[in-house]
Amino acid sequence: MHQRLVVVGGGAAGMSAASAARRLDPDLDIVVLEAGGYAAYGMCGLPYYLSGVVAGAEALLAYPPSFFREQRRVDLRLHTPVTRLDPDHQVVHFRENGRDARLEYHRLIVTTGATPVVPPLRGLDDPYVFTVRTMEDAISLRSLIDAGHIGRALIVGGGYIGLEMAEAMAARGVKVTLAEALPALMPNLDPPISELVEEEVRRHGVDLRLGISLEQVRRTPDGLKAILGGKSVPVDVVVVAVGVRAGATIAAEAGAATGPGGALLVDDQMRTSLPDVYAAGDCIAPFHRVLGRPAFVPLGPAANKTGRVAGTVAAGGQARFTGIVGTAVVKVFDLAVARTGLTLGEAMAEGLPAVATDTVGKSRAKYYPGSDPVHVRLVHETGGRLLGAQMVGGDGVAKRIDVVAVALQAGFDVDELAGADLSYAPPYAPVYEPILLAAQAAQAKSAPDRPAEAPSHAAAGSRR
Amino acid sequence: MHQRLVVVGGGAAGMSAASAARRLDPDLDIVVLEAGGYAAYGMCGLPYYLSGVVAGAEALLAYPPSFFREQRRVDLRLHTPVTRLDPDHQVVHFRENGRDARLEYHRLIVTTGATPVVPPLRGLDDPYVFTVRTMEDAISLRSLIDAGHIGRALIVGGGYIGLEMAEAMAARGVKVTLAEALPALMPNLDPPISELVEEEVRRHGVDLRLGISLEQVRRTPDGLKAILGGKSVPVDVVVVAVGVRAGATIAAEAGAATGPGGALLVDDQMRTSLPDVYAAGDCIAPFHRVLGRPAFVPLGPAANKTGRVAGTVAAGGQARFTGIVGTAVVKVFDLAVARTGLTLGEAMAEGLPAVATDTVGKSRAKYYPGSDPVHVRLVHETGGRLLGAQMVGGDGVAKRIDVVAVALQAGFDVDELAGADLSYAPPYAPVYEPILLAAQAAQAKSAPDRPAEAPSHAAAGSRR
Repeated sequence: MHQRLVVVGGGAAGMSAASAARRLDPDLDIVVLEAGGYAAYGMCGLPYYLSGVVAGAEALLAYPPSFFREQRRVDLRLHTPVTRLDPDHQVVHFRENGRDARLEYHRLIVTTGATPVVPPLRGLDDPYVFTVRTMEDAISLRSLIDAGHIGRALIVGGGYIGLEMAEAMAARGVKVTLAEALPALMPNLDPPISELVEEEVRRHGVDLRLGISLEQVRRTPDGLKAILGGKSVPVDVVVVAVGVRAGATIAAEAGAATGPGGALLVDDQMRTSLPDVYAAGDCIAPFHRVLGRPAFVPLGPAANKTGRVAGTVAAGGQARFTGIVGTAVVKVFDLAVARTGLTLGEAMAEGLPAVATDTVGKSRAKYYPGSDPVHVRLVHETGGRLLGAQMVGGDGVAKRIDVVAVALQAGFDVDELAGADLSYAPPYAPVYEPILLAAQAAQAKSAPDRPAEAPSHAAAGSRR
Repeated sequence: MHQRLVVVGGGAAGMSAASAARRLDPDLDIVVLEAGGYAAYGMCGLPYYLSGVVAGAEALLAYPPSFFREQRRVDLRLHTPVTRLDPDHQVVHFRENGRDARLEYHRLIVTTGATPVVPPLRGLDDPYVFTVRTMEDAISLRSLIDAGHIGRALIVGGGYIGLEMAEAMAARGVKVTLAEALPALMPNLDPPISELVEEEVRRHGVDLRLGISLEQVRRTPDGLKAILGGKSVPVDVVVVAVGVRAGATIAAEAGAATGPGGALLVDDQMRTSLPDVYAAGDCIAPFHRVLGRPAFVPLGPAANKTGRVAGTVAAGGQARFTGIVGTAVVKVFDLAVARTGLTLGEAMAEGLPAVATDTVGKSRAKYYPGSDPVHVRLVHETGGRLLGAQMVGGDGVAKRIDVVAVALQAGFDVDELAGADLSYAPPYAPVYEPILLAAQAAQAKSAPDRPAEAPSHAAAGSRR
């Protein structure tokens, strides 16, 4: 009998793991148990499916199940929720076709993802109250919109998903109210940056309620009512997007060590504390290179990478995941909003001697048409060590944040960032690229003992 | 008497130097001697002024002369070509208002830029034969186009400037022939990449002649004729863009040490070999971090940065320029074409054990509208050390090359690049960002002894 690898979860991490394992070992018996009806879909595409930017849900599939079954010879089983893990006997228990089933494994990879937090409020079991984490959620919600049943939506939560949902709904002509319990949108950004996002959201007609909590949802003869800050607001649908928690229950109940956010702790080869059990994706807390310890930051790129590492190692190969730096970007109407590393708030919570430097650069040469402002906040230690960045601007922002992400990975200080040899041509950047302008300003702020050097657009460029 | 700093050249480097010196020392006597009639203009903007994308030439000025004279208290003198440098007596000789003049200096900064190479061919002194390096060149050429005198142009040289000029002329309805003596466009790219550029240039109607040299230009009663590969081609204007050489003559004649391309050698504080003489910009060969030695790569960003360092140090401050990695981007019609580090050809010429890995990624999630191919060529040592990258694609390419530029600055290998925590959201990138896809393919190629791991789009993303 061949060795058997069981992967629990058929999302990004799980299917990356299964594929990596197959590439390494053509003989391995690979079984994927997926609780839902879809595998390997682009969860981050759900808002764009809702908005109609993506026409059909099937477009979100990286590959159809038949591809995994036939090309990759992976025994992908849908609608097979795992109920228990028995690491002592190396057995996984699950439901299949309405019956209890079990499988022995030699190696197991847990990729059970994250699950939306639903606050314990009255009325959230109404069928018109949604979370949007699965393909099934999105298909149901979109069919209601397509049928013309949704005129007014309440989005609860002003994080990435809440904002993407607000944009998607607005694009469908739905009147959107967005309620965030905290006094600012995007609590994972510092206020000067989140305020730019607030302006953008309001500018697009969203009724933004900050510092307001949802108290309950009531189904009345006149329809659905959301009670927001003591007031009753009539709505057709409520989308709850107040965050996620690690879906680590099965592995944790079996004794796997957990860390921040209840997520599974793993080493750099994705081994959990249980023998022959690996984990990857949104259910783990990978090493955060700037914090220097594990952190729960469930995002797609790390899910794919850690899945690949887990699959490679579980199949007997060599691979390592050296950590995240906390890079993320979200489209909010006409803005790209990006971050990497730590915010000033996060750095101060760590007790670091942090300061922030805010600058506004241009996306192109000032004389070139379409030159937009690029807001850059650099967070750094007073001694110069780079800790993070936040950026708001047009499309170019998404890849500009990556420049700082690599600088963080390399452990740069602001001097090294200011010395970066970044590309320049008038249609794509000013000669003083916004990142360099920000780094120069940060240099002045991080070395109060050296002669002041304010940033400057001094002279525009010479280029062969 | 105050200390006097004389800056020779009022381009990007010179005005950056003067501005940095003024920020550091409010009392310094700062004189800038500029041979031409303009200072601090965006030389890289000239093609966009010619094409009409930029309406007026004055838009290319970073600041008008009055700004430097009044706000920065810099004695900026135009039309004052320097004729001789006497480092023993710390005197600079120049022409002013038709007379010989001289100035003593305490510190001097040479920012004499680069000058276009004009091959020693018959007929290149015709007034309809241009180089486009100065504002004066561009104003003359544009006035001819505006007046309707230019129906057919011959561009000689298929590098950055030649291609930008071809695009600018085509945008004005001029029929363009582009002749390149070498068998490929853009000799500073490897053939698989330069071939993509060739297709794009032909697709836009440019009559591209590769491996064809200009032999002479003849003024005839029927107008201008260019002799190209033995054949006479009627043209209205010829633009020569076959490269530049360092304009280091004045300093070299005074005994300053020169290196690659005849450019001035400087230390990391921009000191030349002459006492109290600094240099910056296109006339120097700064340290190239990947080559590990000075290189002549005259481009705008380094001109600005080295000017700033020279001005700061010459005024008594502390600053260092830690080197270039050879990053450049150019717009060629609808393509952005970018490079950083070394090409495979350059790496092999260095005797490095180099290989190239070519991949084609997508600029956005595959299901998101407007997802374009991004061609990535990574050049790396067989052991994994990253040496360079070339990219061709849409607008996002310009900032994507910067990710690799920072990775080169940090001395990454392909494993470290593959582990980069790059941003992901469907409108801005696929979850397997093209750079990561390329790095994964390069991993497989750089470690033939480890189990093969082909790159994969395996599963699309999960993201909170």
